[in-house]
Amino acid sequence: MKVGDRHYHSIWLADDGWGVEIIDQTRLPHRFEVVRLETLADACRAISDMLVRGAPLIGATAAYGFCLGLRRDSSDQALLQIGEQLVRCRPTAVNLRWAVERMRLVLAPLPAETRVEAAYREAGRICGEDVATNEAIGRHGVELIRRIWEEKEKKTPVNILTHCNAGWLATVDWGTALAPVYRAVQEGIAVHVWVDETRPRNQGAHLTAWELAAHGIDHHLIVDNAGGHLMQHGMVDICIVGTDRTTASGDVCNKIGTYLKALAARDNNIPFYVALPGSTIDWTLTDGREIPIEERDQDEILRVWGREEGGDLTRVSIAPEQTPAANPAFDVTPAGLVTGLITERGICPASREGLAGLYPEEAGA
Amino acid sequence: MKVGDRHYHSIWLADDGWGVEIIDQTRLPHRFEVVRLETLADACRAISDMLVRGAPLIGATAAYGFCLGLRRDSSDQALLQIGEQLVRCRPTAVNLRWAVERMRLVLAPLPAETRVEAAYREAGRICGEDVATNEAIGRHGVELIRRIWEEKEKKTPVNILTHCNAGWLATVDWGTALAPVYRAVQEGIAVHVWVDETRPRNQGAHLTAWELAAHGIDHHLIVDNAGGHLMQHGMVDICIVGTDRTTASGDVCNKIGTYLKALAARDNNIPFYVALPGSTIDWTLTDGREIPIEERDQDEILRVWGREEGGDLTRVSIAPEQTPAANPAFDVTPAGLVTGLITERGICPASREGLAGLYPEEAGA
Repeated sequence: MKVGDRHYHSIWLADDGWGVEIIDQTRLPHRFEVVRLETLADACRAISDMLVRGAPLIGATAAYGFCLGLRRDSSDQALLQIGEQLVRCRPTAVNLRWAVERMRLVLAPLPAETRVEAAYREAGRICGEDVATNEAIGRHGVELIRRIWEEKEKKTPVNILTHCNAGWLATVDWGTALAPVYRAVQEGIAVHVWVDETRPRNQGAHLTAWELAAHGIDHHLIVDNAGGHLMQHGMVDICIVGTDRTTASGDVCNKIGTYLKALAARDNNIPFYVALPGSTIDWTLTDGREIPIEERDQDEILRVWGREEGGDLTRVSIAPEQTPAANPAFDVTPAGLVTGLITERGICPASREGLAGLYPEEAGA
Repeated sequence: MKVGDRHYHSIWLADDGWGVEIIDQTRLPHRFEVVRLETLADACRAISDMLVRGAPLIGATAAYGFCLGLRRDSSDQALLQIGEQLVRCRPTAVNLRWAVERMRLVLAPLPAETRVEAAYREAGRICGEDVATNEAIGRHGVELIRRIWEEKEKKTPVNILTHCNAGWLATVDWGTALAPVYRAVQEGIAVHVWVDETRPRNQGAHLTAWELAAHGIDHHLIVDNAGGHLMQHGMVDICIVGTDRTTASGDVCNKIGTYLKALAARDNNIPFYVALPGSTIDWTLTDGREIPIEERDQDEILRVWGREEGGDLTRVSIAPEQTPAANPAFDVTPAGLVTGLITERGICPASREGLAGLYPEEAGA
């Protein structure tokens, strides 16, 4: 999507055809800095220090990390070591493991001297597929927005509430939850986005607000507390969020606080949709309560990162020194609160039957 | 309540018998600073700059501000001017107006030379009544906590979730929502409090966490997003919050985000109680949707206040410069989501009948 006048992906090949460039997302929204990756170690650092985040983008970065590593040594042994090193960067990232496996499977049978070229080709394919998937999510999801736009007789913007960041910065382009929003803008539908700041890490304030501002989309930042009130007062037409993991029965595990917005949506008869690529469905799980919830460092809550008056970036403590914090990172929204799932194959009810209809080959197993 | 070993009120007469001392709440939780008020102007500044906040404490400060003003001039004209000056400090604070009216009514009939002494007596009475009211709220509310404690066979602490600050710092002592908690501790009931940080102003992180830490009560700070997840997992036994205004039918207007916690409590069969002095019931209103909601400065969201590593207090911006914020300060929780109201006269259902049972003289009108 756009940053000013230029269309960006979140990761791309440099003009020299081998270096890899990314946006340092730890500096957003205060600095827009492009970082060049030249070695496997650069890619590992980008992943572990979270210069890149979001499952699809982590996968894409790992794929390019493979390319950079193979440039130095493309032997069988190197192939193994590169994969292991990448996976260790964020051990819980499912997409990271998936991308590494895919690269390994493609490259292992090839002669060592052809691997570098093949790796770049495969990494490019992974990125291209991600863009196509998200573009399809946008194409399906925009119909929901268009229907509201028509119900409003095209007089006032469609108000969309989103939580966390499931935009193009989390993917290679388009995003998941924001793909329908970008698509709507492309098609001339007037939209306005309520952006939950998404404490504790503030991905809404840092990333979603930045994306929307950079692309020129009308939006307001709100605290996570405000969404229910806005829904009570008819100021939200539809909620669209992303998901980290979806069960085969349609329960949705997403950033902490998603569940509260889903409750408010139901209480006010507002459609609550979740956008996802089919790859994030966990077909082995039928009950969201089985999903283990990561408890993250309390420092994420106790200290808030931002820009000082003078422009320096710093952290400030917001609580008494003796106060501990508890920091569950995700929650599970039961399928019953989800109006529908927006996937690359279409929109379906958040249920076993709904998902089976779109992914018969998976659900039949 | 206690700060370390010493019992504090939030406002008190200095040892010299005429100066008034308060805690500068704008500096909490990072600095504990007592400020001495010697003039009407000092009292006005304390109210308008929010060194004191919370309806009952604002009322008490206004009463003492009257005393300080009268020390300089106790004429009829001064009486009028003092009241007007105080009311202008925070025009929307109902309790401020109430305290000013009460002082004026008591003092106007008296000879000018006896007014100062009478004013101090009346201010002391206002404070004493507030303490007694909150102490009674605690006495009634603790029974809810005791029942849970007994159901748990006194084996694990009772987990109480609260939002914003309705503790002793908002009143003269005890607080409203926290009065039952302090009482429980006094009676040897093991409690643990989940403290919502309460964005955007972070009263939970700044004030509630500080109160509890200072009194030595077990607690964890959580982001406003986390409460629903904790309730889903049986980690909350009861929610107790305060209220700024309650309708005659039991709808509750409180800090933004309260409604979302009430929804989660209902979804998980967790009791949701609201603690309040009868004086905050608005008998003229029957529908919470009629309550106008204050939209506050967007800067409260866009900039977060805290303590830097070096100890300095500062604000940091958390959003892109082009991003605007919307900042509704309160929301309304419909009576149907409220398990009960804890008042100084006892606990009642959140309904017209419930309130009429406790306040027949008001409801009968």
